[in-house]
Amino acid sequence: MRFSELVQTLDPAAPNSLLSQPDLNPEVSGVAAVDAAVAGQLSYIEGGRFVAFLETTQASALILPMDETLQSQATTRGIAWMSTPNPRLLFAKAIALFYQPFRPAPGIHPTAVIDPSVKLGDRVSIGAHVVIQPNVVLGDDVCIHPNVVIYPDVQVGDRTLLHANCVIHERTQIGADCVIHSGAVIGSEGFGFVPVAVGWVKIEQSGRTVLEDGVEIGCNSTVDRPAVGETRVGRNTKLDNLVHIGHGCQVGEGCAMAAQTGLAGAVEVGNRVIMGGQVGIANQAKIGDGAQIGAQSGIASDVAPGEAVIGTPAVPRRLFGKIAVITQHLPEMYQVMRRVQKYLDGKMVQ
Amino acid sequence: MRFSELVQTLDPAAPNSLLSQPDLNPEVSGVAAVDAAVAGQLSYIEGGRFVAFLETTQASALILPMDETLQSQATTRGIAWMSTPNPRLLFAKAIALFYQPFRPAPGIHPTAVIDPSVKLGDRVSIGAHVVIQPNVVLGDDVCIHPNVVIYPDVQVGDRTLLHANCVIHERTQIGADCVIHSGAVIGSEGFGFVPVAVGWVKIEQSGRTVLEDGVEIGCNSTVDRPAVGETRVGRNTKLDNLVHIGHGCQVGEGCAMAAQTGLAGAVEVGNRVIMGGQVGIANQAKIGDGAQIGAQSGIASDVAPGEAVIGTPAVPRRLFGKIAVITQHLPEMYQVMRRVQKYLDGKMVQ
Amino acid sequence: MRFSELVQTLDPAAPNSLLSQPDLNPEVSGVAAVDAAVAGQLSYIEGGRFVAFLETTQASALILPMDETLQSQATTRGIAWMSTPNPRLLFAKAIALFYQPFRPAPGIHPTAVIDPSVKLGDRVSIGAHVVIQPNVVLGDDVCIHPNVVIYPDVQVGDRTLLHANCVIHERTQIGADCVIHSGAVIGSEGFGFVPVAVGWVKIEQSGRTVLEDGVEIGCNSTVDRPAVGETRVGRNTKLDNLVHIGHGCQVGEGCAMAAQTGLAGAVEVGNRVIMGGQVGIANQAKIGDGAQIGAQSGIASDVAPGEAVIGTPAVPRRLFGKIAVITQHLPEMYQVMRRVQKYLDGKMVQ
Repeated sequence: MRFSELVQTLDPAAPNSLLSQPDLNPEVSGVAAVDAAVAGQLSYIEGGRFVAFLETTQASALILPMDETLQSQATTRGIAWMSTPNPRLLFAKAIALFYQPFRPAPGIHPTAVIDPSVKLGDRVSIGAHVVIQPNVVLGDDVCIHPNVVIYPDVQVGDRTLLHANCVIHERTQIGADCVIHSGAVIGSEGFGFVPVAVGWVKIEQSGRTVLEDGVEIGCNSTVDRPAVGETRVGRNTKLDNLVHIGHGCQVGEGCAMAAQTGLAGAVEVGNRVIMGGQVGIANQAKIGDGAQIGAQSGIASDVAPGEAVIGTPAVPRRLFGKIAVITQHLPEMYQVMRRVQKYLDGKMVQ
Repeated sequence: MRFSELVQTLDPAAPNSLLSQPDLNPEVSGVAAVDAAVAGQLSYIEGGRFVAFLETTQASALILPMDETLQSQATTRGIAWMSTPNPRLLFAKAIALFYQPFRPAPGIHPTAVIDPSVKLGDRVSIGAHVVIQPNVVLGDDVCIHPNVVIYPDVQVGDRTLLHANCVIHERTQIGADCVIHSGAVIGSEGFGFVPVAVGWVKIEQSGRTVLEDGVEIGCNSTVDRPAVGETRVGRNTKLDNLVHIGHGCQVGEGCAMAAQTGLAGAVEVGNRVIMGGQVGIANQAKIGDGAQIGAQSGIASDVAPGEAVIGTPAVPRRLFGKIAVITQHLPEMYQVMRRVQKYLDGKMVQ
Repeated sequence: MRFSELVQTLDPAAPNSLLSQPDLNPEVSGVAAVDAAVAGQLSYIEGGRFVAFLETTQASALILPMDETLQSQATTRGIAWMSTPNPRLLFAKAIALFYQPFRPAPGIHPTAVIDPSVKLGDRVSIGAHVVIQPNVVLGDDVCIHPNVVIYPDVQVGDRTLLHANCVIHERTQIGADCVIHSGAVIGSEGFGFVPVAVGWVKIEQSGRTVLEDGVEIGCNSTVDRPAVGETRVGRNTKLDNLVHIGHGCQVGEGCAMAAQTGLAGAVEVGNRVIMGGQVGIANQAKIGDGAQIGAQSGIASDVAPGEAVIGTPAVPRRLFGKIAVITQHLPEMYQVMRRVQKYLDGKMVQ
């Protein structure tokens, strides 16, 4: 594809080098990272440490931010470019032009074991050795990769994709356009036991898990169902790998949680909340809309809407940075404290 | 079921409102959380923030603690109630009355691949695509969901339940009445390598993993086997999802570990130890009976019986709270320290 | 096997008690930990708290360090011994003499579903219910346990072992002599989304994951592929269970990462880096060759080669120990600070 055609497809309104250099219109055959691109490839620069690669990249074309310095640098190096306020977004669209993800054809593999009561939408694809228990309902264009197991009474919405070896437990409701990655377990029993003198009494987990439309659950993540009621993950919320969502959590829309984050029971998370990796949130904590929680934070109580916190226990992000620096001075502070204590004791100061 | 009948079934000795209001005997058709219950449902209140819902709940019947204020509030609102020192326990029993968990019928699915040497107990249920290698012994009423793989020489006790896609490795011994949740891996090779000049020499893991009776292992959790000897999890110990138990650990009876907790190698955990989520315990640490370890703690050395610790490194729970508060004053303390340092330097105080 | 023969096999150059006690040449029938060994078994003592077991062990033979005190103690107790600077290494070799790991015979199980385009090396073993998609290439002596799923265009090198229920995603390249443990997911989609006003735009993950020769990936661990380019794990690097490697990470050779450690995106890890469990490393951080990162550390920025760090944020290991001790004195320091603040305020000192 010619660069001019690519620009036209990605963003016709974007400023681009063709205006000043109409003969700079390379054939673009693929996409690559800016430090790995070869001739014929398109890449992007968003800022930060990647700017330096503008001097050395072999890319034939670049998506740049709205930055005239970078633009003229690219022009000088003979690299075709286009500019946009969000280079990563356009690069994502460019990848989608060149990359066709693997998608099995519709059809049901003869080794799949599907209960006769299961209702299948149009054009479903069901891979080898999939097992689907009674009363499951699959929407149109659902794609289920091999070795997936679906327990009874599950509903899966249109166009949802279940990757290999994931398990969907009884009564789970999965919306449309969801992706469940390999090995994830959805709707499994919450960790519910009542301590008694001689051990634990199990609380049957009679509730269900609901994933709304557009939810994505990473590999080997787990979303438990509660004793009663629902565990719910809201529209377009994205979970990375090895994340745990405990029984009865209510997660809002458009959130993102990085890998290995865990929510205990009955946590309430608002909309558009962002969590780094390995965050832990205690039972029944409430996280307000738009909150940002730094990696490895331990959240023991509520976080207000829009707050940016980090640490265990979590503090405002700014304070965390200060504390981190001062913590390194603690040995020195301790010396001074002992010195002053002696001095004050000598003065009899209380 | 009439409420009076329900009370009779759950706890005939419980004080209940029927004594004072014999006509308040609603039909109970199900269970729900106190803030989600509708007419005809039973719920419970244990205390804390749930007490407030007593004003608004639509539940027709409640399990209450031994608290006369709550009791008379319920009576005033026309809600039938019963009282008990442990409402959650009775509510667990109530759920079990109304909820029938999914349990496949006994029988062996024709797609299961079972070595001829395998010994099967009575009434076992073996799902589709299960694979059982040589010399495995399954007790009576064992239930194995689809796509489970059992390596050779494994023993599984009576009534134990293996959920979909879990893997049981060679020589593992699983007791009676255990539950292994979806995707868990039991008896896998411990992480054993000896560093040498040119990399790592693998230590073959010739030991085995033993789960005693009544153990429950959460989804996608892993319990490794050691180079020699055993990894052991004691009777009635419950592990949440994504927990890791390293090679050679000895975990006692009646413990509970919340999600994403990890034990390194050869850790010794006593009986009735409780761990929050994301706890990490270093090699060979010993955790005494009844210890309580707060979420995200990092345990580098032994914890005495009965101790309640938290933090990294862990400190007594009370101290942790104080430290957490004071940590937020560190910037201020640092300012004072610099001020006093100057003052003392001026006074030539050592 | 006679002890003399064992010594000859393990390390002919090792000093051993046979020189001084030629009649002390027991038959050795197996290996065990020093505190669990019975008569006829070989064990080892490396130092530390295991030295005490020399008084009580029932082992008939021991591998000892180069320590004359321990040697003469063993002789006194009538235990045959050999000495070496690295007892654990020789014990690993001894285990391998007595233990034959389970290894399915070559052959393809009739229930495996293998696309006709797949190229199989000599003597491959493919277990029941394995699914292999188009254009996969398997080397010689590859062993694939039951219920593994391999997506299209994957290459697997000679002698590599895939344990049950693991999933290898499209385009992944796995070298020779690798081990992928049960439930691991390799080459899955990186967590790539661009935030936009109404949620997230997915970035297709068109890259691939490469595991070089001798890599071992623990149970239920995940190694994602990037949007463009490669995620790479270098020769002989070993990952424990439940580890997450994010999209675009470059991990060097001979590294080891303990359980539940997570690397965010585009992290660069040098050679021979050691990480404890539950470590978290932020996007784009660079970890130098030979660095050692303590358990539960949170690494927000680069770590220099050879550095030993720990904590969140990470500090040099020595400083961490000091800080940990002083942190426990914070309440006391805070009291002194308030006292001195009052004093200085009274003196009008700035």
